[in-house]
Amino acid sequence: MNDTRRLEGEEARIDADRGPRLREHFGRVRAHTIDLVRPLSEEDCCVQSMPDASPAKWHLAHTTWFFETFVLEKYEPGFRPFMPAFRILFNSYYNGIGEKHPRPQRGMLTRPALYEVHLYRKRVNERMEAMFEKHGHEESFRLLVELGLHHEQQHQELILTDVKHLLSLNPLKPPYGGQEREPSAPAGALEWTGFDGGIAEVGHDGNDFCFDNELPRHRQYLQPYSLASRLVTNGDYLRFIEDGGYNRPELWLSEGWDWIRANALAQPLYWESTDAGWSEFTLAGQRRLDVERPLIHISYFEADAYARWADARLPTEAEWENAAAGQTLRQTADEAWQWTQSSYSPYPGFRSPEGALGEYNGKFMVNQYVLRGGSCATPAGHTRTTYRNFFPATARWQFSGIRLARDGSSSLLEKPVGASRRDAA
Amino acid sequence: MNDTRRLEGEEARIDADRGPRLREHFGRVRAHTIDLVRPLSEEDCCVQSMPDASPAKWHLAHTTWFFETFVLEKYEPGFRPFMPAFRILFNSYYNGIGEKHPRPQRGMLTRPALYEVHLYRKRVNERMEAMFEKHGHEESFRLLVELGLHHEQQHQELILTDVKHLLSLNPLKPPYGGQEREPSAPAGALEWTGFDGGIAEVGHDGNDFCFDNELPRHRQYLQPYSLASRLVTNGDYLRFIEDGGYNRPELWLSEGWDWIRANALAQPLYWESTDAGWSEFTLAGQRRLDVERPLIHISYFEADAYARWADARLPTEAEWENAAAGQTLRQTADEAWQWTQSSYSPYPGFRSPEGALGEYNGKFMVNQYVLRGGSCATPAGHTRTTYRNFFPATARWQFSGIRLARDGSSSLLEKPVGASRRDAA
Amino acid sequence: MNDTRRLEGEEARIDADRGPRLREHFGRVRAHTIDLVRPLSEEDCCVQSMPDASPAKWHLAHTTWFFETFVLEKYEPGFRPFMPAFRILFNSYYNGIGEKHPRPQRGMLTRPALYEVHLYRKRVNERMEAMFEKHGHEESFRLLVELGLHHEQQHQELILTDVKHLLSLNPLKPPYGGQEREPSAPAGALEWTGFDGGIAEVGHDGNDFCFDNELPRHRQYLQPYSLASRLVTNGDYLRFIEDGGYNRPELWLSEGWDWIRANALAQPLYWESTDAGWSEFTLAGQRRLDVERPLIHISYFEADAYARWADARLPTEAEWENAAAGQTLRQTADEAWQWTQSSYSPYPGFRSPEGALGEYNGKFMVNQYVLRGGSCATPAGHTRTTYRNFFPATARWQFSGIRLARDGSSSLLEKPVGASRRDAA
Amino acid sequence: MNDTRRLEGEEARIDADRGPRLREHFGRVRAHTIDLVRPLSEEDCCVQSMPDASPAKWHLAHTTWFFETFVLEKYEPGFRPFMPAFRILFNSYYNGIGEKHPRPQRGMLTRPALYEVHLYRKRVNERMEAMFEKHGHEESFRLLVELGLHHEQQHQELILTDVKHLLSLNPLKPPYGGQEREPSAPAGALEWTGFDGGIAEVGHDGNDFCFDNELPRHRQYLQPYSLASRLVTNGDYLRFIEDGGYNRPELWLSEGWDWIRANALAQPLYWESTDAGWSEFTLAGQRRLDVERPLIHISYFEADAYARWADARLPTEAEWENAAAGQTLRQTADEAWQWTQSSYSPYPGFRSPEGALGEYNGKFMVNQYVLRGGSCATPAGHTRTTYRNFFPATARWQFSGIRLARDGSSSLLEKPVGASRRDAA
Repeated sequence: MNDTRRLEGEEARIDADRGPRLREHFGRVRAHTIDLVRPLSEEDCCVQSMPDASPAKWHLAHTTWFFETFVLEKYEPGFRPFMPAFRILFNSYYNGIGEKHPRPQRGMLTRPALYEVHLYRKRVNERMEAMFEKHGHEESFRLLVELGLHHEQQHQELILTDVKHLLSLNPLKPPYGGQEREPSAPAGALEWTGFDGGIAEVGHDGNDFCFDNELPRHRQYLQPYSLASRLVTNGDYLRFIEDGGYNRPELWLSEGWDWIRANALAQPLYWESTDAGWSEFTLAGQRRLDVERPLIHISYFEADAYARWADARLPTEAEWENAAAGQTLRQTADEAWQWTQSSYSPYPGFRSPEGALGEYNGKFMVNQYVLRGGSCATPAGHTRTTYRNFFPATARWQFSGIRLARDGSSSLLEKPVGASRRDAA
Repeated sequence: MNDTRRLEGEEARIDADRGPRLREHFGRVRAHTIDLVRPLSEEDCCVQSMPDASPAKWHLAHTTWFFETFVLEKYEPGFRPFMPAFRILFNSYYNGIGEKHPRPQRGMLTRPALYEVHLYRKRVNERMEAMFEKHGHEESFRLLVELGLHHEQQHQELILTDVKHLLSLNPLKPPYGGQEREPSAPAGALEWTGFDGGIAEVGHDGNDFCFDNELPRHRQYLQPYSLASRLVTNGDYLRFIEDGGYNRPELWLSEGWDWIRANALAQPLYWESTDAGWSEFTLAGQRRLDVERPLIHISYFEADAYARWADARLPTEAEWENAAAGQTLRQTADEAWQWTQSSYSPYPGFRSPEGALGEYNGKFMVNQYVLRGGSCATPAGHTRTTYRNFFPATARWQFSGIRLARDGSSSLLEKPVGASRRDAA
Repeated sequence: MNDTRRLEGEEARIDADRGPRLREHFGRVRAHTIDLVRPLSEEDCCVQSMPDASPAKWHLAHTTWFFETFVLEKYEPGFRPFMPAFRILFNSYYNGIGEKHPRPQRGMLTRPALYEVHLYRKRVNERMEAMFEKHGHEESFRLLVELGLHHEQQHQELILTDVKHLLSLNPLKPPYGGQEREPSAPAGALEWTGFDGGIAEVGHDGNDFCFDNELPRHRQYLQPYSLASRLVTNGDYLRFIEDGGYNRPELWLSEGWDWIRANALAQPLYWESTDAGWSEFTLAGQRRLDVERPLIHISYFEADAYARWADARLPTEAEWENAAAGQTLRQTADEAWQWTQSSYSPYPGFRSPEGALGEYNGKFMVNQYVLRGGSCATPAGHTRTTYRNFFPATARWQFSGIRLARDGSSSLLEKPVGASRRDAA
Repeated sequence: MNDTRRLEGEEARIDADRGPRLREHFGRVRAHTIDLVRPLSEEDCCVQSMPDASPAKWHLAHTTWFFETFVLEKYEPGFRPFMPAFRILFNSYYNGIGEKHPRPQRGMLTRPALYEVHLYRKRVNERMEAMFEKHGHEESFRLLVELGLHHEQQHQELILTDVKHLLSLNPLKPPYGGQEREPSAPAGALEWTGFDGGIAEVGHDGNDFCFDNELPRHRQYLQPYSLASRLVTNGDYLRFIEDGGYNRPELWLSEGWDWIRANALAQPLYWESTDAGWSEFTLAGQRRLDVERPLIHISYFEADAYARWADARLPTEAEWENAAAGQTLRQTADEAWQWTQSSYSPYPGFRSPEGALGEYNGKFMVNQYVLRGGSCATPAGHTRTTYRNFFPATARWQFSGIRLARDGSSSLLEKPVGASRRDAA
């Protein structure tokens, strides 16, 4: 992700002492969201391309609604909402707050106009400033603000994934702007790093911010395993396609096979095969496929099938976290979210917070799979090695890719990827 | 319809001699389309509220595409399209022209921007002006231009119906502007006008413009019949609702009954029952229901059920046309399109024109019902007594209403509407 | 249809004097229904292949329910139903009678067992015999019995169409038995018969039985027209297929084109293209396609497209009836129901009977098209030249075919079918 | 489950020495399947009530197909299938074997007739007998036979679940026969049993039969936890319903809430609320709800919501297995399958067998949840403490129930179920 879309890592991290710098951080994060929609027209910001995606305008308003609802309403004496109707329009999924506008209808909201949403942001920012004056040193206030900023950063990434999806549906293939990713250096050979297993500690530790789903830190027992040193590239995945990967049921989970058949899927989202070779739609427009780049925009089903083809498997989230804590791996958080084979479920001892904020994470813990790391579209400083992203097995519009894993931690790993199983077939 | 939305009838009619005045008419009609979108934001113009409706921006572009494709391409030497991609994007349904953007995806076109579509209109208008210079007196040129202008007028009405539908889905219930209809005078008693029947001539006569589906003029044999002097009002329809109309299967066509049950329909589109009584969404925003006004926004199924409840029936299109030619009826073309019981089918001897324009009407002649007259949203001068509008039996977002008919032309008609059948039940 | 499936025409017709012979006729028709299910197992009789079709067991029970409900309940003092639950289970669509088992769930009724339904038939027959003793000479009784027998004959044909559909879904392609149709003699050249038009009388005349939808007899004005002397054959239709008929949008109604694309249709129902040529599934099992036989099992959309390809059109029902009354045409009622271009609608002055029997026909008069004639599966003596069969435009599992029509009554008809339009393309 | 449906546990277990007794066991298991369909008519055996369920006749044939395909084809010299078409018709989901009849169309197979399937079973049994003669002492043969018998036992339970679902759709509510479960003694108070956690061994151990998904045995780290001593009863669940359980979104996973709303679910499958109180459909017909019996026929979503309401949670499968290995719990395997919160996924080091049998379990390891234990419909001797059953979170037609779990292993567990959270609300 180039500079216009990413804050400097140095500045973005919340300072450990959480003093006045949280207030500055608030200003920077809020401003960055505005920066992200600058290349977009009012029309681009209004349309919803599918029920899973939201209009950029809706993201702008909802992130503001979050501060208004969870901070201002609590701290402002005589609180009055900017606009009562917005309480419903921009509630995403908090039943504890009350009614909400139906998700698939978010794109119908041509009113309020974009400028009104910008005004909403400005007014709420001003009121937040006043709250910083009064409560900026209170722990509970700071925790809510931090949560709101991490929440806003999640929506910053969604703005990019959702806009990319919208623009991809336009036959004109208009670019969002800039470059999606830096030109890649050669990926280099895929190597394996072994880990011994045993009892590992998993989950967030310390006093820095984390989401509730990263807690409590707890023990897990790991068998010896190995992880690939780098992510699977477009070129790697092309070999899978050329080897008939999408036509061999033995490589697929049964539900995945039915799904690719029913939807006639034969390549990653945004890839297109033309007479001139493979190209892909990017935030910078239609581009020739770069075989050295890490693969993105694949579903769990595709990731799993690729891994099986490669005589490997997806890592568990505990394996991933244990390895990332050591940090000998490349491309952990800056290229693509990495599908794990772990279903998204509560850690032992997990407790949702009381009240509506308890709906933030816990109620989604079914039929979703955990992704770890971070992507080229993730705001700098947003993720951690304990961070748990999650999507259904069919989701492809996120910047999701593959890091391979294998059982065992040593020499048997020399088997070449994708070769042996095919030879045996 | 108030002045900002309707041209003066005097000016709007195409002069019989079709001389330079066609060129002026071209300018007025094209300008009127622009007037219609003036109250709308770019966002309002971009969003598609359902597959049956189109964004206003799409209407603006498609009506221009029509002149570019069917006039400029034929008459301009060395013709080059304004933008090659628009040839596909703004083709509605002409297979003879080539590919077309899928109808349900029209709302994804955030690009071209609205201003680009305005530029497209301007440039095509300029090129049309040059064509008027060269070909303005040629019959075949004039016929195509007239067709294009009538086509544009059809889309003018659709802009209003589609925008109304879009705004109605917004919980803020924003008005489009102005007044939808003049405040009504008391509707007065419903009276019956008898017609003797016998052989009638049906279909367009003379040299003025008409659509292909109004031809050829031909004979039909009519039994004696009567038509209601005025349309059914909101107040009339309220009595049907209060009499359990939506809960009595014996009043409904079987398919209609299944349809209202499956969709939980119990009142016309845009009606809402509140503690303070009935209100309706209008182009002027949410309004208290005016019981004196002609009913609008009902499906064929509802029209048919109401007629059965009222011990009456819907007229055939031949009955309607035969009566309207005499013109003793009120509210023929300025309030609501009037459902007839006639399925939309070709007149005896009907022939579609050669080429892509043959797709204009003929290929829709199945599973649709004819509406006659015109509505408060129809541009003045657009319709004729022979004009055939048509929609599926479930369509409700058009300005569609009811004129009742009965068999026989005389005194037995004195039976009060809605009373006898109920008494017998 | 061979002898085991068809009563002798001589015997089947209801005698004009309607004396004791109605009672004999009752016995024969009821027995014939039993004959039709003789080749079927209990399993064959129980399964429902699609919501439009019903299990044979259900037909057996419903036709009995009809006599129980509309005759016995009216005439038997102290009437008690054979089994109260059957009142709901075997009500097809009469809201006036009360609740009904949902149509798509008819195949779930493994109980009552087939033998119980046979017993139901036997008991109701016995009670009907007693009613014949008491009321056999009363006009109103005889009218209800006649209606019930015509109703049963309609279901006799449906038993065959529905069983054929069920068996066709079985990869074993099991035959129902016998022969579906006699081996065909050469079809001979298609010739045209002209009719002058003018005022024609349409609808049933006289005192014999007819359904309410055939009344009242009334006048219609017809333009001069011609009808093909014979039906379209399989061989004729093969030429349409080979000429790209299913790939040329200009031949299709817009809704029909969308429908064949969405369902990937490229030949009539039951046709299969194999290396050894075309074959079709018949009641006698899988058979080589006989090119001389009249085409069956096509939708209205296909019939309409074929007619357009053949530079012809479908007849209106009035044209068909007017021609059939003269009877110079071949294959009017013994091969295939013949799609007309007429939407199924009430005749001028049509009135449904009072009560639940008023639901028999009238409530289906929307979005269906009239077929005239009769088929190889129609019981002898069941149809008339005024008989109106009707199905939606997508129905293909009926024995439905094509008789072509053209405008005008004379020499211009010499144009060869299917040639000119193609030449112009 | 009463005696007619369950083999004696003593006899049912496969003898450890696996000698001639496997052959006797083969005979008993195969005969038991026939016993299960004895109360059913041919019609009952043929109909498919939903895509998830299969007709009993299909189960009879498929379990035979399994022996024919995986044993006879391998061991019989010059193997010829009983009927080539059955190879496709009765293949469930083994892509490695070849084509298969579509699952939702299994109910269309009125042919082969039930007696032909019985003949198929008989002939394959005879051929199996011959194989026992030649190969009965070979380890690989015995392993395949054991797999086939365990496979058949799985289908024995499915025959009951599927027949129950079919009969429940019939308004006559016909009984399958016998008693579904013994009359219950009072359930007694729910008590908690604590477990210390630490490193536990999970997965099958030893040489007895197990499925591939129970392997390899491996270590997991468990936190201290407690399990309820008995299952949740109908009476317990009634309190949840009466406390508004189905109307309180805070108790539900988000996807579960949407699902119960969309399907208007407000009680377990087969429960019905009448004026006379709650009743339920059972294999013995419609019965008054027994509040002392363990709850059955609930989805994962309902199980999870109930647990949250009860201030508890579902156990993980490792917790369940660790506890069951000790066996201080009641109702582990004879009442209801017990939903765990564990997504169905491969054990560390899991490898599918080579060939088509590798499709038995592995390819379903996504979007399903593990159930442990066994039910009143499970054949005696079929399950183990390491046995992993699995179904999607929406499945309700299985005999599935709830055993509650809580964090920690000691005194804090005294909190009454269902009380505290409600008080706090």
